[in-house]
Amino acid sequence: MPQSERKLIKAIAAAAGGSRNPAVQVGVGDDCSVLRLRTGHELLVTTDFCIEGVHFRREWHPPEVVGHHCLTRGLSDIAAMGGEPVACFLSLGLPPKLPQSWIKGFLSGLLALAREHRVQLAGGDTSSTPQITADIVLTGQVPAGTALLRSGARPGDRIFVTGSLGASGAALKKMYAGQRLRPARSSQHFFPQPRLDAGQWVRKHRVATAMIDLSDGLSVDLAHICEESGVSATVSAEALPIARGADLNSALHGGEDYELLFTAAPKTRVPDNIAGLKVTEIGHIEPATRRRSKAAPCPLITLVNPSGKLSPLEPLGWEHFRS
Amino acid sequence: MPQSERKLIKAIAAAAGGSRNPAVQVGVGDDCSVLRLRTGHELLVTTDFCIEGVHFRREWHPPEVVGHHCLTRGLSDIAAMGGEPVACFLSLGLPPKLPQSWIKGFLSGLLALAREHRVQLAGGDTSSTPQITADIVLTGQVPAGTALLRSGARPGDRIFVTGSLGASGAALKKMYAGQRLRPARSSQHFFPQPRLDAGQWVRKHRVATAMIDLSDGLSVDLAHICEESGVSATVSAEALPIARGADLNSALHGGEDYELLFTAAPKTRVPDNIAGLKVTEIGHIEPATRRRSKAAPCPLITLVNPSGKLSPLEPLGWEHFRS
Repeated sequence: MPQSERKLIKAIAAAAGGSRNPAVQVGVGDDCSVLRLRTGHELLVTTDFCIEGVHFRREWHPPEVVGHHCLTRGLSDIAAMGGEPVACFLSLGLPPKLPQSWIKGFLSGLLALAREHRVQLAGGDTSSTPQITADIVLTGQVPAGTALLRSGARPGDRIFVTGSLGASGAALKKMYAGQRLRPARSSQHFFPQPRLDAGQWVRKHRVATAMIDLSDGLSVDLAHICEESGVSATVSAEALPIARGADLNSALHGGEDYELLFTAAPKTRVPDNIAGLKVTEIGHIEPATRRRSKAAPCPLITLVNPSGKLSPLEPLGWEHFRS
Repeated sequence: MPQSERKLIKAIAAAAGGSRNPAVQVGVGDDCSVLRLRTGHELLVTTDFCIEGVHFRREWHPPEVVGHHCLTRGLSDIAAMGGEPVACFLSLGLPPKLPQSWIKGFLSGLLALAREHRVQLAGGDTSSTPQITADIVLTGQVPAGTALLRSGARPGDRIFVTGSLGASGAALKKMYAGQRLRPARSSQHFFPQPRLDAGQWVRKHRVATAMIDLSDGLSVDLAHICEESGVSATVSAEALPIARGADLNSALHGGEDYELLFTAAPKTRVPDNIAGLKVTEIGHIEPATRRRSKAAPCPLITLVNPSGKLSPLEPLGWEHFRS
């Protein structure tokens, strides 16, 4: 093992001590980590790649932002099930000549968010790779049988989103156009907040029939709900809570907003505000549309434009930094 | 998302249907997977990178071998805790021009081993990367409080290993020397077998005070036991069960044998054979040696040569394919 990797493992082990969760019986340093869930709870697991040039660019995103973002992706998946996060596992591949300060910044960004949500860094792996390659595993827990799935939406259900949409996509568009943005703490692009409190509130109050987080963009993520539930959806462009400085296109396809989208039965009372987040009704669920022919498949989502015109909403979604 | 990645996700989803485990409530296709452990059990989690050029070479290792190997690394960690595997998660980054047949072979090798051990492929992620990058997460379960750790070895304990050592390292040495080896099913290098039955037997019969799997080589892995337990160890070169065709050096430092090493209290009866595997006593545990000076640190492990001469055993271990 080269010296640089030994250093990395030490840095990760030190970071692992920075945030504790009582479920972790054995953390970093054995063949496996050992977690003890609360009685009557089920385990949630999600894994997410965070790869230089695909999910972030070193010249646009400081290491703290990358560390924060890596953990947000997994935490947001836990939020979308209505779960409570427990521990994360970090597999980190780094180029041999990466400055030590990058690693320090990355771990500090990840750890600050971990502490906020009592997530313990409980294991992982290291290697050398040509570009920065992180794979983050998040584990969480939820009372047995109560996890909110993508498959529960039914015709007649209304569709809701938390917060506002498009800010992250709009920031990205500016950077593609050559603008340099300051990675402000308040920026939804640089420091997105996983909606854990809202997700847990929705589960506890049995408000939703299905839920998902908006990581790939509304057009892609709502299509997932439709596919898994065997339904279609209609969304009103006018109703969308578009973030300041963003446009309709970013709100529909931008991705990485990490807000929650959920469906609720017609008679369920859904508050305007959940866990401090504005909640907006943006459309409703309809029966699955039948495909008329291979040449003209029916869309999963129909968009109602401000003029009342209907158009199919293709899942264009989030292409990350692919060129 | 490019067409190639969509294809990959479909192939993984199909593979996910090929091996089931009853603990998996929700598998591939939601924000998180949902696992329900048996009552009174704890969760085991381990993650392992498997990276082209570091852990394998495409020209030496056919895709089935790489798939098998990826899963073995995690299963072997579960075995080392005395656990029962439940589900795996595969994050797979692939170069854009990789032939479809490679992916097919990789998944088939992984899935064949998964079926053998009732491990369900329950999630993961995909991306494009310059070289093949797999990160495998294995989850398992074990009755609460019974997982076998690295930290339980005490002075006076005897040290045992299952099977034979050095076969994998010896095969690798031949390949470095330019020899082309046929990836035979019976080869410990190409198709190593995780020692799950033996690990569970050792846990159930309370035979061991500490256990680890030999993935990085005896010299490195026994040093981990010594570090975590705060002890030192003496190993007899003559006692080592060296594999046919291997030498002492491969047995000590070769790595990737995936046998189990455990320590047992002086009075514990340890059988010669556990779950069909030969068990060999190779040395004993002693109190931690005191460091005399920075210049002459005391070794964690002492090797007794056939002549009776003592020498420190440095943890040279497994450097994978680093050049």
